[in-house]
Amino acid sequence: MGGIMTTLPGPTVGVIGGGQLGRMLGEAAAPLGVDLIVLDPTESPPARATTTGQIAGGFGDREAVMELASQVDALTYEIELADPDLLAEAAEKFDIPVHPDPATLRTIQDKLIQTEALADAGIPIPEFVGVDTEESLSEAVEELRAVMLKARTGGYDGRGNIPVDSPADAADALRTVGGNALAEAFVPYEREVSVIGVKGADTVRTYPVTETIHREQILRESLTPARASPAVRDKAQSVAVDVLETLEGRGVYGIELFETAAGQILVNEIAPRPHNSGHWTIEGAVTSQFENHLRAVLGWPLGPTDLVAPTATANLLGDTPDRQSQVQTNPVDTVLADSETSLHWYGKREVYPLRKMGHITVTDRQADAGGRDTSMDPLEKARELRDQVTFTAE
Amino acid sequence: MGGIMTTLPGPTVGVIGGGQLGRMLGEAAAPLGVDLIVLDPTESPPARATTTGQIAGGFGDREAVMELASQVDALTYEIELADPDLLAEAAEKFDIPVHPDPATLRTIQDKLIQTEALADAGIPIPEFVGVDTEESLSEAVEELRAVMLKARTGGYDGRGNIPVDSPADAADALRTVGGNALAEAFVPYEREVSVIGVKGADTVRTYPVTETIHREQILRESLTPARASPAVRDKAQSVAVDVLETLEGRGVYGIELFETAAGQILVNEIAPRPHNSGHWTIEGAVTSQFENHLRAVLGWPLGPTDLVAPTATANLLGDTPDRQSQVQTNPVDTVLADSETSLHWYGKREVYPLRKMGHITVTDRQADAGGRDTSMDPLEKARELRDQVTFTAE
Repeated sequence: MGGIMTTLPGPTVGVIGGGQLGRMLGEAAAPLGVDLIVLDPTESPPARATTTGQIAGGFGDREAVMELASQVDALTYEIELADPDLLAEAAEKFDIPVHPDPATLRTIQDKLIQTEALADAGIPIPEFVGVDTEESLSEAVEELRAVMLKARTGGYDGRGNIPVDSPADAADALRTVGGNALAEAFVPYEREVSVIGVKGADTVRTYPVTETIHREQILRESLTPARASPAVRDKAQSVAVDVLETLEGRGVYGIELFETAAGQILVNEIAPRPHNSGHWTIEGAVTSQFENHLRAVLGWPLGPTDLVAPTATANLLGDTPDRQSQVQTNPVDTVLADSETSLHWYGKREVYPLRKMGHITVTDRQADAGGRDTSMDPLEKARELRDQVTFTAE
Repeated sequence: MGGIMTTLPGPTVGVIGGGQLGRMLGEAAAPLGVDLIVLDPTESPPARATTTGQIAGGFGDREAVMELASQVDALTYEIELADPDLLAEAAEKFDIPVHPDPATLRTIQDKLIQTEALADAGIPIPEFVGVDTEESLSEAVEELRAVMLKARTGGYDGRGNIPVDSPADAADALRTVGGNALAEAFVPYEREVSVIGVKGADTVRTYPVTETIHREQILRESLTPARASPAVRDKAQSVAVDVLETLEGRGVYGIELFETAAGQILVNEIAPRPHNSGHWTIEGAVTSQFENHLRAVLGWPLGPTDLVAPTATANLLGDTPDRQSQVQTNPVDTVLADSETSLHWYGKREVYPLRKMGHITVTDRQADAGGRDTSMDPLEKARELRDQVTFTAE
């Protein structure tokens, strides 16, 4: 796959994972003439509505991955649970590219190795230490005072992350995260921010810095540009570019960062795929992270990452007491009727507590080029509208 | 289907026709949580990539239409070849809404009846007369001097339209259009424009006036806002609103208009569906015509139709000497690399002369609120980029 589209119909991209990220990749693919086929174990996954095919199978199912690879011109993934070894094998067997590089995925899948790689590259990160015994964790807590204990592998949306501030809690915490972990000095941050970056065939671009607001370690809202000083935003951009240079392979990356009280920028985590904190780019940037991911994977020219207008998003999270199908939402008329707000449903058939069901985006198109107008606070509006969307079992 | 979304997953809309309009409806449907199923006789039609299902069948195939209706919560159509009687029957049988109203489709399908209805409603239109004999056409040409002879039914993209300026040509022309036609006084227009309108449950909205540039009666380029005076644009909007009032049923309508040298506005044709001259709304308006069509059909609140920025489009038309599959395009790198340009491929498997294969949109985001900047002419740029996209058989 070179830098050009040479035949009609256009190329087909295989995607490991068919969740909401795959669904939004599909929304971006059609105008480009790109077909997507997803590999996902579930029936009618969110991406099915926007893609031309699905291979039903687990992310580690060799036969399914090879079947996918046999039908496509390039491979990518929208979930870190993809298997880097299978991807590398399939890419070689069918002589097709896979991006980002499976080696990058392998590094990122292990938080200790990821963090060590960043440290080796001189990227600013919190103090950290690998721990695999109660004793080593107790020592780490004593030395670093409070730590965020992170499972080395398999964590997602904060699952597998436990704050530990007393050596007495070490044994329990270590058992909970599975015994093999990374202990990171707890950063008393001023603000969490993220930078979405995209590596093309020979260009790297970053989007404006996004402020991310988490509760229970799950992203709730975002605001772009972040309410940080221009100097801090510049630093975040520059750190993000340094991080991108350490990563092999084309595609979009989500880079989560801490801004400390002293205005320092520290890298928290990296996702080798479009990221929840980049959903604002659909309305708020010239080219969405999803379109740019496809352009990058195919080696096509990247689209501009410039801001169109200040933009806030709020995730619509499941709020039922337990897992439910046959769900009613309350009316979303208010969201649909609001002239600054866009609705994004993920087409999920079941709701459970904190499941990401969709998101809304508020775009402040009235703002002047320099920033925000005074008539509307997009973050406040996103929160108000979000609070009106609730789910109940039928 | 009331004005609200009440259950997850969202509603399913059945669409007669699976061409590029269906494809772009599907692109707009996914974020709203709406699934589409299309009815189309061809294998892998353009809409297939963005919809959850296809009923394979002809537009007039009763069994296929009933099967479609049995699977959906509402019906609409993206092609005038839909059968109004079957739609009305299916809607009644399955107690689901169909929009726009089949009666509107029936009226629009017959150009003579359409024109008579507009005349009855006092809408400004060119002089016209129904003709079904050589004699009546000769008389019409003598009286109106030059006429555009239009087949009463089945015309599309100028097929079925023949200019006649000599009574001697009457017999041949009438035979070509099938013997039953509408003779319209040829309008020596200053400019062709269109207004995309949308009728919701209790609101009517129109988009800014678009200038449309045809050759061989096929739309080549569009520019919004049209280069007409503010007074003429106001008149076009007001005529469009009058036209919308004569039409039954919710949905998007494309209203084609002539601007005469004297600044008069005359209605040329009406399409009861999203329209080629409204593709600019995907990038250039707050809500695209496709999203607003779905909102309208479902009785949901309409989105704003405001202009985001001056916008031009150019159709990418087949230029091969005959029908071809296995088509190469020349590189579209230039289009992809241009920061003001968006590419829209329709995923068609075959190319033939003048077939609509895709379109490009140039958005002048640097323009100030009042108009265009001087650094870029979006229409000129759209033409230049369009001219670089050519097709050749492999």
